[in-house]
Amino acid sequence: VNDLYWPGDHRAGGVMSDPALVEAMVRVETAWLAALVSEHVAPADADADLTGLVGPEDADLLAELSESGGNPVIATVDALRSRLGATGAAAAWVHRGLTSQDVLDTALVLCLRDALDRVRVELDHQVEALVRLATTHRSSVMAGRTLTQHAVPTTFGLKAASWLDGVLDAAVGVERAATDLPIQAGGAVGTLAASTELAALAGLTDPVAVAVSLCSRTATTLGLAPHRPWHTNRAPLTSRADALAGCTDTWGHIANDVLTLSRPEIAEVAESSAPGRGGSSTMPDKRNPVLSVLIRRCALSAPSLAAQLHLAAAQSVDERSDGAWHLEWATLRTLARRTVVAASQASDLLRGLEVHPDRMRAHADAATAGLLAERDSLLARFGGSARAAGPEGYLGATDILIDAVLDRAADPASRS
Amino acid sequence: VNDLYWPGDHRAGGVMSDPALVEAMVRVETAWLAALVSEHVAPADADADLTGLVGPEDADLLAELSESGGNPVIATVDALRSRLGATGAAAAWVHRGLTSQDVLDTALVLCLRDALDRVRVELDHQVEALVRLATTHRSSVMAGRTLTQHAVPTTFGLKAASWLDGVLDAAVGVERAATDLPIQAGGAVGTLAASTELAALAGLTDPVAVAVSLCSRTATTLGLAPHRPWHTNRAPLTSRADALAGCTDTWGHIANDVLTLSRPEIAEVAESSAPGRGGSSTMPDKRNPVLSVLIRRCALSAPSLAAQLHLAAAQSVDERSDGAWHLEWATLRTLARRTVVAASQASDLLRGLEVHPDRMRAHADAATAGLLAERDSLLARFGGSARAAGPEGYLGATDILIDAVLDRAADPASRS
Amino acid sequence: VNDLYWPGDHRAGGVMSDPALVEAMVRVETAWLAALVSEHVAPADADADLTGLVGPEDADLLAELSESGGNPVIATVDALRSRLGATGAAAAWVHRGLTSQDVLDTALVLCLRDALDRVRVELDHQVEALVRLATTHRSSVMAGRTLTQHAVPTTFGLKAASWLDGVLDAAVGVERAATDLPIQAGGAVGTLAASTELAALAGLTDPVAVAVSLCSRTATTLGLAPHRPWHTNRAPLTSRADALAGCTDTWGHIANDVLTLSRPEIAEVAESSAPGRGGSSTMPDKRNPVLSVLIRRCALSAPSLAAQLHLAAAQSVDERSDGAWHLEWATLRTLARRTVVAASQASDLLRGLEVHPDRMRAHADAATAGLLAERDSLLARFGGSARAAGPEGYLGATDILIDAVLDRAADPASRS
Amino acid sequence: VNDLYWPGDHRAGGVMSDPALVEAMVRVETAWLAALVSEHVAPADADADLTGLVGPEDADLLAELSESGGNPVIATVDALRSRLGATGAAAAWVHRGLTSQDVLDTALVLCLRDALDRVRVELDHQVEALVRLATTHRSSVMAGRTLTQHAVPTTFGLKAASWLDGVLDAAVGVERAATDLPIQAGGAVGTLAASTELAALAGLTDPVAVAVSLCSRTATTLGLAPHRPWHTNRAPLTSRADALAGCTDTWGHIANDVLTLSRPEIAEVAESSAPGRGGSSTMPDKRNPVLSVLIRRCALSAPSLAAQLHLAAAQSVDERSDGAWHLEWATLRTLARRTVVAASQASDLLRGLEVHPDRMRAHADAATAGLLAERDSLLARFGGSARAAGPEGYLGATDILIDAVLDRAADPASRS
Repeated sequence: VNDLYWPGDHRAGGVMSDPALVEAMVRVETAWLAALVSEHVAPADADADLTGLVGPEDADLLAELSESGGNPVIATVDALRSRLGATGAAAAWVHRGLTSQDVLDTALVLCLRDALDRVRVELDHQVEALVRLATTHRSSVMAGRTLTQHAVPTTFGLKAASWLDGVLDAAVGVERAATDLPIQAGGAVGTLAASTELAALAGLTDPVAVAVSLCSRTATTLGLAPHRPWHTNRAPLTSRADALAGCTDTWGHIANDVLTLSRPEIAEVAESSAPGRGGSSTMPDKRNPVLSVLIRRCALSAPSLAAQLHLAAAQSVDERSDGAWHLEWATLRTLARRTVVAASQASDLLRGLEVHPDRMRAHADAATAGLLAERDSLLARFGGSARAAGPEGYLGATDILIDAVLDRAADPASRS
Repeated sequence: VNDLYWPGDHRAGGVMSDPALVEAMVRVETAWLAALVSEHVAPADADADLTGLVGPEDADLLAELSESGGNPVIATVDALRSRLGATGAAAAWVHRGLTSQDVLDTALVLCLRDALDRVRVELDHQVEALVRLATTHRSSVMAGRTLTQHAVPTTFGLKAASWLDGVLDAAVGVERAATDLPIQAGGAVGTLAASTELAALAGLTDPVAVAVSLCSRTATTLGLAPHRPWHTNRAPLTSRADALAGCTDTWGHIANDVLTLSRPEIAEVAESSAPGRGGSSTMPDKRNPVLSVLIRRCALSAPSLAAQLHLAAAQSVDERSDGAWHLEWATLRTLARRTVVAASQASDLLRGLEVHPDRMRAHADAATAGLLAERDSLLARFGGSARAAGPEGYLGATDILIDAVLDRAADPASRS
Repeated sequence: VNDLYWPGDHRAGGVMSDPALVEAMVRVETAWLAALVSEHVAPADADADLTGLVGPEDADLLAELSESGGNPVIATVDALRSRLGATGAAAAWVHRGLTSQDVLDTALVLCLRDALDRVRVELDHQVEALVRLATTHRSSVMAGRTLTQHAVPTTFGLKAASWLDGVLDAAVGVERAATDLPIQAGGAVGTLAASTELAALAGLTDPVAVAVSLCSRTATTLGLAPHRPWHTNRAPLTSRADALAGCTDTWGHIANDVLTLSRPEIAEVAESSAPGRGGSSTMPDKRNPVLSVLIRRCALSAPSLAAQLHLAAAQSVDERSDGAWHLEWATLRTLARRTVVAASQASDLLRGLEVHPDRMRAHADAATAGLLAERDSLLARFGGSARAAGPEGYLGATDILIDAVLDRAADPASRS
Repeated sequence: VNDLYWPGDHRAGGVMSDPALVEAMVRVETAWLAALVSEHVAPADADADLTGLVGPEDADLLAELSESGGNPVIATVDALRSRLGATGAAAAWVHRGLTSQDVLDTALVLCLRDALDRVRVELDHQVEALVRLATTHRSSVMAGRTLTQHAVPTTFGLKAASWLDGVLDAAVGVERAATDLPIQAGGAVGTLAASTELAALAGLTDPVAVAVSLCSRTATTLGLAPHRPWHTNRAPLTSRADALAGCTDTWGHIANDVLTLSRPEIAEVAESSAPGRGGSSTMPDKRNPVLSVLIRRCALSAPSLAAQLHLAAAQSVDERSDGAWHLEWATLRTLARRTVVAASQASDLLRGLEVHPDRMRAHADAATAGLLAERDSLLARFGGSARAAGPEGYLGATDILIDAVLDRAADPASRS
């Protein structure tokens, strides 16, 4: 289901959708149940693949039922047990040793991983597009602008390299965020008490070690990292949210530049013109830079979403927080989906960007006196003559600076 | 469709849902089309009731199509025209004189009105419940607490009256917000140029006056107030967002008090125990104050949503903003839905609240020395003896203060 | 002391400075002490004018001492008592019946009143400047712009009128905010217990009525409105914060337009050139639109400050909040000072704005085909010929819309 | 100067104060001037130690002058030149090759480094205190609490270990933030044009290489890392802000727990009672948990400040942003100072925390039935008998989990 209120939402597909969350919760329960059996805590006939037992078609009802317990896990477990058949071993053993927060936090991490994977792919596309722009336009002279006014000359290649530098910064953050995504598995208050008790009931010799193994085994199954329970230590989420905001910051920067440079009086760049894109409901000639507009929209909102996750972290209390935890789910979902959407839009924007070096050149030429005023004041003060004429004669270390960013882009290690 | 990530979301029903927005956009187009005909700008055969021509079943596709133009209006108008039949007068005249922002802003205002109406009803319920609590517990002595520690005595009646005072403050804000909800109708850049031109084409004598009449007539049809175009003056939205945040602030306050007072070591109040409510996925005896938890969750998030609308307003530029406008829609939707959910939850919370004056009394008695330390220091300094023994002897103007709030609640004028 | 980190801060002078807060706290204590004597609660010889007894020179030490009690009132009262002389009646009676929050909240309200007064004066200046701009440039044709691209024609007069409409919206909010600014006076937990007890000790017949009179008398002395204790109902602050954000929203809108229109490629307006203003540390020809830059800076920050006050309100608990209250002081100070600074800058900006109708005209002429594309598509569809040639022939109801805002500006009642 | 509106502000001393910023700007100019001479761009007699030439006593005037250019650098450079004497080589050469943003950004980074150093010291203190608490109270049984209600048993040692885990997470972030703090040095638009031109004027053979060397040499002098110009790529600041918010999040969590557990009805912990600390202006027996209150205050505010820096980053445009850059300075200052204050308060809080295992035990004993309900339901379902009696018999992997965190604390590598 796409969000009519957030054009472009369909680009995120099922990422962190309601069905995705249901599916992830079921995956967590399945992995845990398998671990219970593998560790001989539960009998062999308790094993069951729960996949599809509760599914997308249940999302709406689960949502409604979720208010009663304050989260969707209780209703999901109830449905799993009921559909497994009341008398079976699997029904008896599903979810034993876990608490709601274990399932929901881990499911959110799984969903988040999908979002991060999507973002990484897009960042790669953007690096590629920007390497091309920085290379192609290495010598496309344009007016540098500060506080909206002409300053000294630069090149569009350096601007593209600067965008690229920002995208690489974002990619570093996302790589780190995608590393060691943690499982949550601590039981009711993070002591693994129920798991330990169940291991003891099963007659195992070191029940505590078994409880710990249940966590690490489940983590392995899910492709996550084992982690101490983090029920009220929320850095695992806030650090990922910061990484997502780092992405939207840099795309916002790019979008702002495109919006400015595509104003008709400047017209130094333009968004690509896909059929129908950028049209108006009433003005037939309109060609709005709609990708940039929508990216900018996202960039204006992401900082506040990341801040909500920090606020939730800072409001932690007891062994499970009374509302702060509950705030995280929709916040993280919204932040992650919006980031995926903007990632995809930014890729399209950069791949299709039309650059008009002739317009840049014309503006720089018309403004040469102003663009060289700094240089001329230096010449006047310290004597000597200019190195070269025209705006292209005052480009400083532009080439080296572009190369430095291109080198960074070429070095995979630069992102870790 | 309920939101699995926001337990309780189903309480908001269709308020500001995707189908509601589609329906509202169609209502706006219908009303405008009728005005065109009534004002003799369009021919009589252009009139058409567009209701249902585009509907909930289209929401998903419209969402996907909305990215191209940056908003859902273009695709909606396209669909309306296509389904009206390409050759008809209605198809030719639908949307003429409007711009996307006119339709979307007005549709959002219509949706917001529904949300405000829902909130008003709940506030009335809350006033009723709180009048009862303040009256019943007028003399239920309890420890006043400041910075978490015992201070001097108060009564639960005064606490309820203080909650009531906050609810009445919120109600004042909502009443004001529900007043003079404005239509948006300015055409492409807020000059009514197309309407005026169309009126001239129709041979009407004062085309400008006709253009203005189109707006006021449409406003009347929709039950809205005429208003100068506010494409980039967004106070009509920020002031409503502030009113919604005013509501969630006060419910957050109440929820925090209930969460504190229902801690097992205090246990002076408890949420009502509906079957299944407040349960845990693993601890059979749990009875969590889940309504308060979910209300608190909302209260933590609403300020940031209202701030996003202010940020969008502050980012206004040109005759239509390049991203700031687009940020408003989902933000307002989320804020409004969450407020409606919390409104309903707060009503349930207050109606069902269990109060234990015996526990209050016991705590106050056990802490009497501390609760009366201020009084005793005054007696020691200025001489004289206490007016009465026990915590109930140091309640000051409690009764008068309760009466003042009850009087306020009884006076309808107090909310304007 | 000016803030080096916030250029322009000196414009706010002493508004909500540390000395202003000290002075306001002393005023509150003086007014309350006088009320105690007037109501015969304290003996006649307890009366004292505390003005200057603690002053600006104490602010630094009071700040340091304030941590111990969590707020600056305790140290202030200690200093007052000590300087009044330990044996005197005034020293014995100062602050009796009050709690720290009473003094600090009321002092903040007094400081806030000064800020609001400053803002009101500036809003009046802005109205004046904008009336002039809207009138002078009523017919200065320019390109309307939406989503950064040319749309249909408008006039700079209508743009100025639209800014004016926003300023009037802000003024309505500030007028309301400046009305009924409340005293805070409830004693330790908002029951007026100490006041009542002291009145009883003094042998007065209706001690509760006396306690209430103390509040209203003190309010009158300070020029504030009596109010029920609002220790944990913070709408009196959040509503004022919303009004301040309403101002910065509208100035942000104006600043964004000026920044856009003063880009060298557009150059339709320019900030006035005071000597030295807008210069660069290295580029001699630079003339940056620095007022707009600094106003925009403020507008980006104010929503988040107002949201912090809402968050503090939503975190209310007990009879005095454990941190939420403490967050309000610096937040309100920063918001109010920044608003006063931006108010003054916005007045300067508007008073000095240079408008270049010739540039507007040239852009509109060069873009005529696009600016009239909507009109031409209507003509093509519905037949008929244009009302007039050129962009000035497609201005719709511009004149009437300007008049409507000018009428609003001329009507004092429009701001209530 | 301490901030009366932010009790505890004096703990931050001069960190990021106005004088500190002046001093840092002068250090940057001095280092750059020395580099110009060392690289033979400027003549030997241009070298000068500018220290103290402009100092704290100038801060107020510089603040006032800063509005004209929009930042404090221009006035600072003017003052330096004037005091160096108009005719000297140093006066002629100071600041040549730099732009305002170079000086201000680098100065802010230097100030930020001081703040980070302060925070690191405090985090070390906190680790030490928490290791002690986790060790001492390893077996202090207490009720685990979720959503405010009793859940299953835990120990205070595990709670302290969980706090410690959060502090270690914060320390990882701060270590990373303190690494590779970058210089900013790009000249007017980030091309190093003026430096390159000056190197050419001096007749040096590879002017571009010299320009790059100027940056790296200055970085070395200042103890910073060379970095590509980041005028509009603001990740160097947002990543540090995120790290600071990570700290306040974890202290907020600790403070919330202390506030809850020190409620008189619970009284399982208490803040240490320094003389005068936690007193009231009217209630003589009060002992408020004032450190926790003030830490909580900070934690409520830091997310929004970090978000403002992200918003500024996302609003980047051109080669220097028109307001977004200007928003960063005061925001970063406020965030950094508040973090330093809270760091110090958190150390005091943890070092002095009084723990009452007897109270914990008593609550756990009184609630045993509820605390063991989960276990008993497992026993009932799966058969078998409990491993041990009482709440201490249901502690799961508590010991191992405590050890894991203690091991992490003991391993310096864990913080990188």
